[in-house]
Amino acid sequence: MSPKITTELLKQLRQVMKSPKYVQEPVQAYIVPSGDAHQSEYIAPCDCRRAFISGFDGSAGTAIVTEQHAAMWTDGRYFLQAANQMDNNWTLMKMGLKDTPTQEDWLVSVLPEGSKVGVDPFIIPADQWKRMSKVLRSAGHDLVPIKENLIDTIWTDCPQRPCKPLITLDLSYTGVSWRDKIVALRSKMAERKVLWFVVTALDEVAWLFNLRGSDVEYNPVFFAYAVIGMNTIRLFIDGDRMTDPAVREHLQLDSTLEPEFKIQVMPYGSILTELQAVGASLSPKEKVWLSDKASYALTEAVPKAYQYLTPYTPICIAKAVKNTSETEGMRRAHVKDAVALCELFNWLEKEVPKGTVTEIIAADKAEEFRSQQKDFVELSFATISSTGPNGAIIHYKPVPETNRTLSVNEIYLLDSGAQYKDGTTDVTRTMHFGTPSAYEKECFTYVLKGHIAVSAAIFPNGTKGHLLDSFARSALWDCGLDYLHGTGHGVGSFLNVHEGPCGISYKTFADEPLEAGMIVSDEPGYYEDGSFGIRIENVVLVIPAETKYNFKNRGSLTFEPLTLVPIQTKMIDVSLLTQKELNWVNDYHQKCREVIGAELERQGRLEALQWLIRETEPLIRVQ
Amino acid sequence: MSPKITTELLKQLRQVMKSPKYVQEPVQAYIVPSGDAHQSEYIAPCDCRRAFISGFDGSAGTAIVTEQHAAMWTDGRYFLQAANQMDNNWTLMKMGLKDTPTQEDWLVSVLPEGSKVGVDPFIIPADQWKRMSKVLRSAGHDLVPIKENLIDTIWTDCPQRPCKPLITLDLSYTGVSWRDKIVALRSKMAERKVLWFVVTALDEVAWLFNLRGSDVEYNPVFFAYAVIGMNTIRLFIDGDRMTDPAVREHLQLDSTLEPEFKIQVMPYGSILTELQAVGASLSPKEKVWLSDKASYALTEAVPKAYQYLTPYTPICIAKAVKNTSETEGMRRAHVKDAVALCELFNWLEKEVPKGTVTEIIAADKAEEFRSQQKDFVELSFATISSTGPNGAIIHYKPVPETNRTLSVNEIYLLDSGAQYKDGTTDVTRTMHFGTPSAYEKECFTYVLKGHIAVSAAIFPNGTKGHLLDSFARSALWDCGLDYLHGTGHGVGSFLNVHEGPCGISYKTFADEPLEAGMIVSDEPGYYEDGSFGIRIENVVLVIPAETKYNFKNRGSLTFEPLTLVPIQTKMIDVSLLTQKELNWVNDYHQKCREVIGAELERQGRLEALQWLIRETEPLIRVQ
Repeated sequence: MSPKITTELLKQLRQVMKSPKYVQEPVQAYIVPSGDAHQSEYIAPCDCRRAFISGFDGSAGTAIVTEQHAAMWTDGRYFLQAANQMDNNWTLMKMGLKDTPTQEDWLVSVLPEGSKVGVDPFIIPADQWKRMSKVLRSAGHDLVPIKENLIDTIWTDCPQRPCKPLITLDLSYTGVSWRDKIVALRSKMAERKVLWFVVTALDEVAWLFNLRGSDVEYNPVFFAYAVIGMNTIRLFIDGDRMTDPAVREHLQLDSTLEPEFKIQVMPYGSILTELQAVGASLSPKEKVWLSDKASYALTEAVPKAYQYLTPYTPICIAKAVKNTSETEGMRRAHVKDAVALCELFNWLEKEVPKGTVTEIIAADKAEEFRSQQKDFVELSFATISSTGPNGAIIHYKPVPETNRTLSVNEIYLLDSGAQYKDGTTDVTRTMHFGTPSAYEKECFTYVLKGHIAVSAAIFPNGTKGHLLDSFARSALWDCGLDYLHGTGHGVGSFLNVHEGPCGISYKTFADEPLEAGMIVSDEPGYYEDGSFGIRIENVVLVIPAETKYNFKNRGSLTFEPLTLVPIQTKMIDVSLLTQKELNWVNDYHQKCREVIGAELERQGRLEALQWLIRETEPLIRVQ
Repeated sequence: MSPKITTELLKQLRQVMKSPKYVQEPVQAYIVPSGDAHQSEYIAPCDCRRAFISGFDGSAGTAIVTEQHAAMWTDGRYFLQAANQMDNNWTLMKMGLKDTPTQEDWLVSVLPEGSKVGVDPFIIPADQWKRMSKVLRSAGHDLVPIKENLIDTIWTDCPQRPCKPLITLDLSYTGVSWRDKIVALRSKMAERKVLWFVVTALDEVAWLFNLRGSDVEYNPVFFAYAVIGMNTIRLFIDGDRMTDPAVREHLQLDSTLEPEFKIQVMPYGSILTELQAVGASLSPKEKVWLSDKASYALTEAVPKAYQYLTPYTPICIAKAVKNTSETEGMRRAHVKDAVALCELFNWLEKEVPKGTVTEIIAADKAEEFRSQQKDFVELSFATISSTGPNGAIIHYKPVPETNRTLSVNEIYLLDSGAQYKDGTTDVTRTMHFGTPSAYEKECFTYVLKGHIAVSAAIFPNGTKGHLLDSFARSALWDCGLDYLHGTGHGVGSFLNVHEGPCGISYKTFADEPLEAGMIVSDEPGYYEDGSFGIRIENVVLVIPAETKYNFKNRGSLTFEPLTLVPIQTKMIDVSLLTQKELNWVNDYHQKCREVIGAELERQGRLEALQWLIRETEPLIRVQ
């Protein structure tokens, strides 16, 4: 990788930072965050402004350009990549290290007195604006919104904002019509006494209207906003997508409807003025509900007295609890996904010893097998296909420069998933195609014990996921090991593979309590820098648990694995498992054999079926 | 309990709320919080203003009196007690119930437009003021500080503020001189670039100067503030306590000292004006460090630009990590405490069957045995001596109205502790003096499994205590049970039995990481309303753990029990214990027998020694 030469670009940016054509007053610093106007995890090429100006294209980072400096904040995953991709104009700010200043503190240290710091108000979340603005103000500077994005003004070959056709999902997939979702949303609004709700997250718009898109890679969403009133529905969306008859019918755009279900379609770009009009029309005590992570631009469109901000929106919470149609769809998707992986692992077992399979080839093969399954749409994230030392890089993605050949001497870690029209998958398996060492088996078994500890955990209704995180680590901790990531994240239903408001991580406290119907991942790991990585990940469904007693009538919950892919028994040191853990593995493999075996047979994939049967042989304790 | 008649008192309070003698402008509401000016957990009689005005004397509650209403907010522990102690003038606001409004929301709902809400600025913590003031302001009201406490103006027989003699602690107890503590504090101040530190919590003043007092029950502290500059030390304290030659020598008040260690003694009441003078003397970028829980009055004495507020002060954090002298003192205190409890349980075993021992008698007897031990000072909290259904009331304290006789048919729970000059104890044991039922044993064993899971846990350096909380619950959760309190709290060294900044609880996220030398309690429980309560509590010391591996060189920690009192084996269902748990119990009892046995022998308490030997017989698994 050679760095991007940014001297000319930075010169141009510094010019527009002073140009009366774009800024009311010159700004002495300009912030370029990672995100788009919807605070999406995956962004469209036209939103990769930070990568454009700096060359650094990792998923997380914030650039700040002043008259003298250009600095990039990113986290430990990307220190190396950012250093390689950026030229000498840039200073790398390593987040998480003790001596690295925050963006605010750095600005205060380098700016001349009374400076103006500019940012695109659509790109910065309101909560972040508030924090940053406060620090700058107390040091005598001003954070100012710059309406025109200054990167866009110098980005001459900026790609167009995608505007791909929409997919309509009928009741058999969603279980609930968009009309009923609107009714439920309005009842939540009434409970909180708010008159308006602004939908800003792309997956929330998609979920609410039972539509999907492909404007962004991996996440089946489309660029849109919605503003829901007690009697109005406004959908802000561009292009000719609303001329598609299937979409028109789905949204009943041409039907005679009660006015409160009539969808007004408006241009994507008109959200701000429409929201300002809503704001201006309010009387005292009338409120507008927004996520506190919505953009500063939209939040400020509503006068402060009328804002009702929460960390999780009612849609985010409703979306997390899957109904029967959704869980059944997720089950189907996971069966198909398991079929593809059985095919893949069977193929790898034969091909790896030949020395011809690279990480990229393996990843492509996984995609090929998945794409053969019904209703396959795309991958749900960039496949992590990593062998040997690459496995220790937690967010690794093979590229030609790093591409390593799989062998019988190294551990192989595959973290991959797909979008099917009926559900989203995300699974990690760690395999050895030769003979693992005793130490590799020992570490794998600790990770497996952690995986089982979470998967088999029983806990009261109302428990937050972060309270389960330590269960995943206990076996590792006992011998001085650990892993430096959370244990699980929420998973959407044919939607984003990472979604809130629940998860299993020591890092958060504000997650919403787990409830039956929520779906999360369970993915402890262990990583040894320079040698190997281990992770075992299932997607699991929160279900009610039967218990002997029932304290305060609260009821209990546990998890049911939706992922049904064998866990390589060759990697397990059985002597380290308790009887309960051994039974869990055998029961899990029995279920894989039954459910996935039947589907492999139905699809006539008999060689993969043989592989499955071999891999799901019950473990026996050798005395 | 008959309620306190408050009609006349409320009438008087409402008069002073309008009297120009006390308030600049009439206030339409007056808030009476629980606390004192130091945000203490235990308060002196003169600070029990909320109890005086309402009759409700539980440890937590806030009264608000308006022209029309009088309302009391308290939590689930006190719903019954508050209802019994308050007359019809009062409305009970049950905190934690869904329909109960917050104090702010309630005020907004009952106050006429543009009201003033008064509060004593010394009693309300700054963070709470901020929260409350914001809500009131956004509804058009004002929170206003009332200098003279309005309750004090109508409390004609208000007791005097205590002013008891001080105890000096030499190096053999504290390990570090007050001079060295000042040096360490100043170096923390220099690190954060603050010029002044204001010590507002009573235990922090006591710890810093190696002094103890008895102004408040249970907590060996005295009323004082301190303001530490880089070259000055000001101690604000009343009475003739500074004329005591031992104290004068301890503080070197009459020695020729470097000026930066010369303590200026000032009247307790002068803190505000002195702090205002400090605030007025500051130049830009000079900061004053205060706890964000310090009173609004003191926080506001420093102009906002100069305030440096943190949730935990450097003293709070330094105090939590005990040095060798302190841990050795804590060990000695726990040995003496165990001797007293062996005597007590041996005595109870003989006396309970006679039917003559009540909860109060048992509590008094426990105190009697403790007071026979060297350097006993007082109890460290009100003894929870509870049998049968009373055991299910988590914060029970026996009073004549509830006093129950111990019997061979009921479980007895004793949660008690003491202050010795060398340490603070807090221990809970749950005993049966007859034959426990299978169900009682089952529940006890789950609690024991949780206790062991925490006590034997190994975890990485830097782990926060709240991440261990679920370990204590796992065995209970597995069969649908739980307990509704945290698992552990920090414990002071001859200081407050509850102290920050560490603990083991699902309720917090902001605790500081555990480190070697910290001392916490490990006290899971199970409570069945109307029938029994079970809790097993040890005070444990955080110590380094030996592990097979050492991930990222972080090192690991575990706990060593300081409490060495037998856990009644009669209550244990051995079949529910793993081999590891069984070994833990036997090893623990072996240590109790050795350490406490030797001390019982030394003290010639041979009958109690026989009891100890009987109670520490190793458990054997019956196949």
